[in-house]
Amino acid sequence: MSQQMHLGLFAAANGHHAGGWRHPEAGTESPLELEYYTGIARQAEQAKLDMLFLADKLAIDDNYGGSFDLTVTHRPTLSAEPLTLISALGAVTKRIGLAATASTTYHEPYHLARMFATLDHLSKGRVAWNVVTSTSDAEARNFSKASHLDHATRYERAQEFIEVVRSLWDSWGPDSLLWDKERGVVADKRKIHYVHHHGPWFDVKGPLNVPRPPQGHPVLIQAGSSETFRELAARHAELIFTAQPNLASAQGFYRDFKSRVVRYGRSHQDVKILPGTMVIVGDTEREAREKEQHLQSLIDTNTGLAFMSGSMNYDLSKHEPDAPFPDIEQEIRGSRGRFQFVFRKAREEGLTLAQVARWYIQSRSHHVVVGTPGSIADRLTSWFREEACDGFNLMAPYMPGGLDDICGRVVPELQSRGVFRSSYTGSTLREHLGLRQPVNRFAEQAGLASGEREAANGEREQV
Amino acid sequence: MSQQMHLGLFAAANGHHAGGWRHPEAGTESPLELEYYTGIARQAEQAKLDMLFLADKLAIDDNYGGSFDLTVTHRPTLSAEPLTLISALGAVTKRIGLAATASTTYHEPYHLARMFATLDHLSKGRVAWNVVTSTSDAEARNFSKASHLDHATRYERAQEFIEVVRSLWDSWGPDSLLWDKERGVVADKRKIHYVHHHGPWFDVKGPLNVPRPPQGHPVLIQAGSSETFRELAARHAELIFTAQPNLASAQGFYRDFKSRVVRYGRSHQDVKILPGTMVIVGDTEREAREKEQHLQSLIDTNTGLAFMSGSMNYDLSKHEPDAPFPDIEQEIRGSRGRFQFVFRKAREEGLTLAQVARWYIQSRSHHVVVGTPGSIADRLTSWFREEACDGFNLMAPYMPGGLDDICGRVVPELQSRGVFRSSYTGSTLREHLGLRQPVNRFAEQAGLASGEREAANGEREQV
Repeated sequence: MSQQMHLGLFAAANGHHAGGWRHPEAGTESPLELEYYTGIARQAEQAKLDMLFLADKLAIDDNYGGSFDLTVTHRPTLSAEPLTLISALGAVTKRIGLAATASTTYHEPYHLARMFATLDHLSKGRVAWNVVTSTSDAEARNFSKASHLDHATRYERAQEFIEVVRSLWDSWGPDSLLWDKERGVVADKRKIHYVHHHGPWFDVKGPLNVPRPPQGHPVLIQAGSSETFRELAARHAELIFTAQPNLASAQGFYRDFKSRVVRYGRSHQDVKILPGTMVIVGDTEREAREKEQHLQSLIDTNTGLAFMSGSMNYDLSKHEPDAPFPDIEQEIRGSRGRFQFVFRKAREEGLTLAQVARWYIQSRSHHVVVGTPGSIADRLTSWFREEACDGFNLMAPYMPGGLDDICGRVVPELQSRGVFRSSYTGSTLREHLGLRQPVNRFAEQAGLASGEREAANGEREQV
Repeated sequence: MSQQMHLGLFAAANGHHAGGWRHPEAGTESPLELEYYTGIARQAEQAKLDMLFLADKLAIDDNYGGSFDLTVTHRPTLSAEPLTLISALGAVTKRIGLAATASTTYHEPYHLARMFATLDHLSKGRVAWNVVTSTSDAEARNFSKASHLDHATRYERAQEFIEVVRSLWDSWGPDSLLWDKERGVVADKRKIHYVHHHGPWFDVKGPLNVPRPPQGHPVLIQAGSSETFRELAARHAELIFTAQPNLASAQGFYRDFKSRVVRYGRSHQDVKILPGTMVIVGDTEREAREKEQHLQSLIDTNTGLAFMSGSMNYDLSKHEPDAPFPDIEQEIRGSRGRFQFVFRKAREEGLTLAQVARWYIQSRSHHVVVGTPGSIADRLTSWFREEACDGFNLMAPYMPGGLDDICGRVVPELQSRGVFRSSYTGSTLREHLGLRQPVNRFAEQAGLASGEREAANGEREQV
């Protein structure tokens, strides 16, 4: 069997295209109905996707003109809290992985370690944590902070946060639960460890009050592209979600990132890179193009400006929409790396602010592939074969119709090309992704008999 | 139909009696298997209970001698994180209410407001938040604090925390989502409000990024008995979970608390009081007593001391177990009100520290009713009729056998006495409990047309 790609479904209740919710094939379901999400998860599972991926934001943005009016008016911005949502979805699915986003800037590591450990137990090893550092002041102001942490500082905090969470996941050794009714012994205290973390951001004693997760550690996902991000992610991340506008940039990112991973003593197989990719599907190329144009006609330009302001953490209302895109690269305080390409594109193509906003809000700078199921599958396969990625985090422009296109039309084409599974072979998300179980940092400590050490080492070999 | 009692199932994966997990009818299921909890939730739903109630603690206690060894060794202390757990259980049940505990001392109000709002949407109005302030230094040390906040301070924080959460739940008015594809309008911005909270503990701007929960606000539960607790709870709580050792004390608490509620301008129907009650069931009175004694024989005394140390946030290892119970009432820093009765009991009965520990760990000072299904139902009915409570939060000494006793034997006796429902009449937890929808604080603000005001007022009347 040839090398297989990995596919996530980047699930957004109302689709990813800013005009998608107005498309005739879009539902008007509330973004908070369990049945709606259950339908999405089951359909993705039937298509044998690796995982469902849920993004998150901890506020309704109001950077643009200091108001949330545009943010709430013309584009669905509501979102179910992802940790609770994936728990419900774990209860109604059996095999598909479930990735939830949570911010290291506004959470506490003990809570997140415990929630993800619980989720991993309840789902039998199917969860992933998408680690983000958040982007906007609107988020800070919901957490008793005047403004968002600067880029370098929030990455420092993220680094320490991840370290604490991973140590808590290690605080229970394998087979620590005994349930010996006769002797009255529940657990083997020798296999449970304080973590005694003391750092600039956190002091956490531990141990966790949930045993080691079935996957050892839930899969760690990170999304971004800045230099700071790459250095952090190269040490910890097991799956990278990234926005890559074209094949060449994706190949460059792929090469660069895999080499960094190796510099940190990891194998390049230890990290999978999945660019976000929106697919707009038609029966013919022409129909697909028309669909793309129709979707674009449903966009409100001002909403695009408001949305981009939120991602930049910068108020674009100071600038004239129809003037050339302003030179503000040094002033934005939100997602940095992501906008490098946007600034370059605006300069190279001589675009106005409004033109950039309309382009950006279409897919939030993610790659868009427009065509028939066959031609889309060809494009995806060539990215995969030409070392631009290990797979894709697929985005539907609207829901649920766009999901039918992905699961019912594009995925079967990939399966027939032999680059994507037709049935699950593993049961955990790590197994779907071909990722190793992490070693438990406490496994080598004194007190473990040699057989136990072997069992602990054996964990590492398992794929 | 006569007045009906309300019944919660205080669900602990391995039962509530400290020796319960060793009982022959106890399972050896991991406390983290979804199927296990699903079975519990469905059984409770078939018995038409109002709700499943999940406690929580944010650490493994190590007050006793500065070590967690006893805590982990002889008594199951692991617990699934309750917010993620009730989300999974909401997906596999239809009617039963789901209450999760979360601490105001170690959480952020925006996260909790959002998670409970999400849970209320996903479960269609079936969730409750059991508000606690936490008890022990072990918890503090998992959240970068040297020690737990003192009693008065943590209640001040709790008061403000609840206020912030409730305002966030109000930040979306009813019918604010429009989904007008034609005009391109998702939501009515006039019905979405900043909360602009500025207080000693929190600055939260809002709005929430989840619309108003189906219940208006998820049901607010509080547990405790101290004076500070009663004053806080009389303003906010809709359901009180309390440990009452006997009929007279329960009646006293009931009278006192209901009169406080009225002093805060609420009706005494606005709060339901449910004492925790462990039932030990036998075919005959004698068999039930023998079962109680058998369970008691399975207890490890030192584990009792360690557990009580955690609840007191005080190290009992300094005291001789077989000496009279020490005079430390002013020194404990954990659950205060709850131990007043314990100290009194120890004095009146001249008990040693070890004797108190063995008694305390049986049901953690909750009322224990031992007997046949019929005699237990009689006792519960007389407490209910004699104004000692509005129902009970029932505790099984061991699981799953103890749950069969509650759902299959005690509840049918209550139903045949006409004091408990035989089928659900409502669909939300508020409806099960006969609690009113809260008024939205923003509903009366300018910008609402008169019809909208009526709709908002109408909410208040709904039961």
